[in-house]
Amino acid sequence: KNILIVPGDGIGQEVTEVGKNVLVKIAEKFGHEFIYDEALMGHVAIEATGNPLPDETLEKMRNSDAILFGAVGHPKYDNDPTAKVRPEQGLLKMRKELGLYANLRPIKLFDELLGASSIKPEILKGSDILFFRELTGDIYFGEKGRKNDNNTAYDIAEYSRYEVERIGRKAFEAARTRGKRLMSVDKANVLETSRLWREVIQALAPEYPDIEVEHQFVDSAAMLLIKDPRRFDVVVTANLFGDILTDEASQIAGSMGMLASASVGDSTGVYEPIHGSAHDITGKGIANPLASVLSAALLLDISFGLKEESDAIIAAVDKLLKDGFRTKDIADASTPAHLLLNTQSAG
Amino acid sequence: KNILIVPGDGIGQEVTEVGKNVLVKIAEKFGHEFIYDEALMGHVAIEATGNPLPDETLEKMRNSDAILFGAVGHPKYDNDPTAKVRPEQGLLKMRKELGLYANLRPIKLFDELLGASSIKPEILKGSDILFFRELTGDIYFGEKGRKNDNNTAYDIAEYSRYEVERIGRKAFEAARTRGKRLMSVDKANVLETSRLWREVIQALAPEYPDIEVEHQFVDSAAMLLIKDPRRFDVVVTANLFGDILTDEASQIAGSMGMLASASVGDSTGVYEPIHGSAHDITGKGIANPLASVLSAALLLDISFGLKEESDAIIAAVDKLLKDGFRTKDIADASTPAHLLLNTQSAG
Ligand SMILES: CC(C)[C@H](C(=O)O)[C@@H](O)C(=O)O
Ligand SMILES: CC(C)[C@H](C(=O)O)[C@@H](O)C(=O)O
Repeated sequence: KNILIVPGDGIGQEVTEVGKNVLVKIAEKFGHEFIYDEALMGHVAIEATGNPLPDETLEKMRNSDAILFGAVGHPKYDNDPTAKVRPEQGLLKMRKELGLYANLRPIKLFDELLGASSIKPEILKGSDILFFRELTGDIYFGEKGRKNDNNTAYDIAEYSRYEVERIGRKAFEAARTRGKRLMSVDKANVLETSRLWREVIQALAPEYPDIEVEHQFVDSAAMLLIKDPRRFDVVVTANLFGDILTDEASQIAGSMGMLASASVGDSTGVYEPIHGSAHDITGKGIANPLASVLSAALLLDISFGLKEESDAIIAAVDKLLKDGFRTKDIADASTPAHLLLNTQSAG
Repeated sequence: KNILIVPGDGIGQEVTEVGKNVLVKIAEKFGHEFIYDEALMGHVAIEATGNPLPDETLEKMRNSDAILFGAVGHPKYDNDPTAKVRPEQGLLKMRKELGLYANLRPIKLFDELLGASSIKPEILKGSDILFFRELTGDIYFGEKGRKNDNNTAYDIAEYSRYEVERIGRKAFEAARTRGKRLMSVDKANVLETSRLWREVIQALAPEYPDIEVEHQFVDSAAMLLIKDPRRFDVVVTANLFGDILTDEASQIAGSMGMLASASVGDSTGVYEPIHGSAHDITGKGIANPLASVLSAALLLDISFGLKEESDAIIAAVDKLLKDGFRTKDIADASTPAHLLLNTQSAG
């Protein structure tokens, strides 16, 4: 099995190294042979080649069985909205070129971190959500540009029935293996793309009579996530709404530093933390590497079908937390100094 | 002064009556003469005239000095994404026709309700946010439709410099009267409309050197709202992002039932609860009318410049809460039955 390591920018470098080490240990322990290669993407790729997703990287990605990915981004582009070449272009191009239309974001709270969230423990306890975010359509990939002498900007959101149906089916099927409830989130009272979205999900529902389907408007869903997170089981939604809701939902798990995601579709899969490159903490050794470690667990489970190996990683993370170890983002006033980890020792 | 009362649908009817009664009492007490008229909008208007915003209603709106509005919507349209006439069309048309480009949503926590939120009191305490949501542009009002034999849907998001600048200025000016911090929320790493948005806000900043400006991506802002609500003072954002973030932020105040909004622009202003028509609780007498009461307070302050009268309403709400009275949405296990109010008695 070929695994491509793409650390990307900022803390992506630090945490992906830890995630990779965990894969190496698991291979040793369970007697697997994984072959690793590495490639550049994002700001570091722009610096080296002028291109945020060099052809060589894309080629290696296509030839991989799975990709462990870090993060891309750099503050210098954020403050310059007119920059023509941007790290995120590489990310979006990767998603499109590899056909990664389904982004799975499990939001699961480790019991030990019940106190780490801003949300009250009695509201949170038992929350367990699996988001299916559509990843290759919507306003991310439609035509965009300027007109009227550069004085008007536009972005086109677009969805086809086919695109909604394939992510919808994945979500319905996942609901079968879990709590049998599916929430579809849209803005069908305003958007035509959302009305198509709702039509397609409604048309699929009779094929999954064992699944209870609920439709929510995105504004209401954003509110309910905080008010009543246990109401959510599997959620399926469009690219932009999924981006917003999953970041919000990270607060259910206490920290973005705990959350992994899987992007799958036609061939290889990409596994990555949901956090970004976080240049403000880069190089300080304080980044929480567990999201990358849990990404490695998702990789083994989803792309390689190695459930036991995946569970072993999750159990190790659980034990680490039970033993009281914490990185800064999930520590609190009661964490003793000798249990405060830096990125490498946590790995 | 002419005040038009537009209760709309569902609990809009119940709560707006209470809001109006408060205006009547205030006029009596402070010796003002307000002239009231009433008009239909939403589902009730469709039933009566076939049109969610009848010409007669629009005409009355144009001739008013301010409008106290309830809510529009009906579940029957939500489950039928193909319905051609929808209550929300009336709402959107009203915003566009009256030029209500600035939607102000103050998120202020009454001390007495510190415990009513799902968020921990120590995180919430002292939160005080004022959102400026752009209300007549973005993906709400661009062209939308179907193509490819009805198999593809699209929505166009659009912003002009002029549109961003006028809402931006309102937000900068409000920041001056408050904590002097402005957060502009966009998705400039993906959307062209957001890149224009950021350019315009950046260009305005030097004119307001006393205001500290921060740019956040919408996904990050959705996360920070829960993690650290005190980080927010004035927020300015586009129509769709504002819709999502303000509903989410309602959880800071404990309940949507406590939050009022003002939509202002070229002429008359519209004052309304941020909650919807809530047909699930309509007619039960349990709706919290305080959002409408606080909308009346905003109306007096913003459209009529009657600050003392407005403050008197807010003080009365505060006293009601201090005396322990609660509607169901803000009650908890410790609320004694005799302090549990229904909609009318709360008013
Ligand atoms: C970096 C950005 C383009 C990206 C997105 O919006 O998809 C990120 O927020 C994510 O969620 O992976
Ligand atoms: C009803 C709906 C069209 C509306 C909106 O999205 O603007 C509502 O959610 C609001 O926030 O006023």
